Amino acid sequence: MTSYCTATYRAFDEKADFHKKAAGIAVGLTVGSWTELPEAKKKDMEKHLGKVVSVEVHEPEADAAPGSLAAQRYADIKIAYPDANFSRDIPALLVTAFGKLSMDGRIKLLDLDVSDDFRAACPGPKFGIAGVRERLGVYDRPLLMSIFKSVIGYDLPELKEQFYQQALGGVDLIKDDEILFENPLTPIEKRVEACIAAAREAEKHTGQKLLYATNITGRTSQLRAQAKKAIAAGANALLFNVLAYGFDALQELAEDPEIDVPIAAHPAFAGAIYPAQHYGVAPQLLLGKLMRLAGADLVLFPSPYGSVVMPKDETLAIADALKQPEGALKSSFPVPSAGIHPGLVPVLVKDFGRESVVNAGGGVHGHPMGAAAGGQAFRQAIDAALRGEALEEAANRPGNEQLKAAIELWGVKR
Amino acid sequence: MTSYCTATYRAFDEKADFHKKAAGIAVGLTVGSWTELPEAKKKDMEKHLGKVVSVEVHEPEADAAPGSLAAQRYADIKIAYPDANFSRDIPALLVTAFGKLSMDGRIKLLDLDVSDDFRAACPGPKFGIAGVRERLGVYDRPLLMSIFKSVIGYDLPELKEQFYQQALGGVDLIKDDEILFENPLTPIEKRVEACIAAAREAEKHTGQKLLYATNITGRTSQLRAQAKKAIAAGANALLFNVLAYGFDALQELAEDPEIDVPIAAHPAFAGAIYPAQHYGVAPQLLLGKLMRLAGADLVLFPSPYGSVVMPKDETLAIADALKQPEGALKSSFPVPSAGIHPGLVPVLVKDFGRESVVNAGGGVHGHPMGAAAGGQAFRQAIDAALRGEALEEAANRPGNEQLKAAIELWGVKR
Repeated sequence: MTSYCTATYRAFDEKADFHKKAAGIAVGLTVGSWTELPEAKKKDMEKHLGKVVSVEVHEPEADAAPGSLAAQRYADIKIAYPDANFSRDIPALLVTAFGKLSMDGRIKLLDLDVSDDFRAACPGPKFGIAGVRERLGVYDRPLLMSIFKSVIGYDLPELKEQFYQQALGGVDLIKDDEILFENPLTPIEKRVEACIAAAREAEKHTGQKLLYATNITGRTSQLRAQAKKAIAAGANALLFNVLAYGFDALQELAEDPEIDVPIAAHPAFAGAIYPAQHYGVAPQLLLGKLMRLAGADLVLFPSPYGSVVMPKDETLAIADALKQPEGALKSSFPVPSAGIHPGLVPVLVKDFGRESVVNAGGGVHGHPMGAAAGGQAFRQAIDAALRGEALEEAANRPGNEQLKAAIELWGVKR
Repeated sequence: MTSYCTATYRAFDEKADFHKKAAGIAVGLTVGSWTELPEAKKKDMEKHLGKVVSVEVHEPEADAAPGSLAAQRYADIKIAYPDANFSRDIPALLVTAFGKLSMDGRIKLLDLDVSDDFRAACPGPKFGIAGVRERLGVYDRPLLMSIFKSVIGYDLPELKEQFYQQALGGVDLIKDDEILFENPLTPIEKRVEACIAAAREAEKHTGQKLLYATNITGRTSQLRAQAKKAIAAGANALLFNVLAYGFDALQELAEDPEIDVPIAAHPAFAGAIYPAQHYGVAPQLLLGKLMRLAGADLVLFPSPYGSVVMPKDETLAIADALKQPEGALKSSFPVPSAGIHPGLVPVLVKDFGRESVVNAGGGVHGHPMGAAAGGQAFRQAIDAALRGEALEEAANRPGNEQLKAAIELWGVKR
């Protein structure tokens, strides 16, 4: 039985025959030529031939806003590529389905439906949502992650103090800044030691566990060694700039049995690929399905409300791709990020549900009573949201003065 | 002395204060905050602070065509990032200069001017134009490369025969199809042996050397081993789908002293990144400067004339970036590709010069007298173009019936 990976494209053109274009893709990106093959050869080649699954042509709607999708002529085209044509790795899949084709006019890759066989070659997240929860012992609420405020140019005691203040607020995860690379002030092993020591210290006060996602950077062939060095120094989670290295580098981190800590995928550079209407890769594939397939336990992406925004339907589609049933793959935590403050927690919980991570930088560090109070305000907001209580009401509960101060500063979004 | 890598962006916005935006980038992507720092700390942090180099605001021109660049409000912004902030690798550079920022509204990365210090950490092409010419012993004309017609589903004898026919036409390089991965019919070592044997055979007839660029694929950590296996089997050049793995994977191939053969970079997936007006990375950076910095000896990109097209100014900018003086970096061969036939050779030579590679697939294999005649027609066209002779005239020279047949079929472009 021939098995296939199916790609969905949106191709734009004012007058193209999209059925012809689809047929051209199915042949051109697989066996190269078909009609001129001798009949005997066709029999051999049939198992390598791409198939047009569907072509749905959308004609421009007369009353649509100029520039809107509805105003354009396009077709959603599904092509099935035989697994026999490529090796079981994401680079081979991407080159097959969107290598040369990416350069062939206005075309965007919307989705990739991989075969069971291909999926079986991808380990997916080692921990997933359930595994990360298990590590933390937190099962009944969205997790809370915080981000260092400023890291470049700061030394170990300064970084440790920043870490400690965030940790005191009751956050579940603290992540490195994605722009923190190997540097003489805070080299990775020393940084891990300092931050994990601060975490232990804070745990005595908060009574809760904490994961520190250390940024794994440097040369490609050294990434796994770098990760193991961090883990040996005590790191209990990793951060990785996946798109600077390719999905396969993430997969190799995730597959390594010695790298037994959750991996958070940072979306750095993703904005070069997902936002254009006519080009690139749809966010739910780029930051959703592929990140999960390659093994991210948590995936950061722009939230629909904050400072760096993504349309809400796209963020929900990413979260769906990270969580919906997908063979034996574990699910990944969606982490809508950037510009998050406690007043956004009710909409975050409503939109992304309990199985998500509330992630904040400025919303923690910018709290008028300090970073520890910032984390506490978030935790109070999360509790209120889960109870279905308005933040303004929750803010008046005794002990919730951190939340009160936060919503006085930032307000509450509905 | 602080040294810097300088990024040039084009940011689009109807009403933004671009000077404020630039200042926000310079601080936000480096030290994180500035004005609120104590004076003593500012002194420490100065060497980590990004600098706004320039902001050139373009106001919409009233009479510009809707959707054109001239019709839009944008600013070209240059920001200098201190080298002290990131490690000397391309992933760190990209994450610093266009990590989070890529997701922050409509913004395109146009250029990266790396410091001498950063450049010194990048080996660039091991061979470059001069080194590739030396391997071939060809100094006085553009090189000719051909591409297999169909490869998937074909076995070794079939591949060898295709190779041999192309080789007979006097091509300088033959490249694998970029969608040919490890497969049971033509595994890499066997494929290299068969093709190199065919090359030796053809060399007896043509009296010229031939490079076979074998496609290096598979898992990231195995790429170098795969390359060495191919080289051990006789491969004298490599093809690599750079963007499926990241620039650093190319750099690690190029840096490896045991990988002592030229590397051709394939642009597969590049169309997901360069074409959008408001997003992504400009082609001369993506396929020009960065490919060269990472060590590509030859770089393929869409030609301005063929079946998969790129605007001419962009293709010329890529070629410029590959060839212009850049410290101690060797230059890389531009390889404008896709839909090239002999009738395009005069414009190719006019536009890209002698230091370029004419690359054809269908234009070789589709020749009415066969693939060998296809290569010959190209060589005849190249000779004519260098003599400044019209192809129609050259076609009437004795012995040039291959060129005659080619231009009868495909015509001549002026």
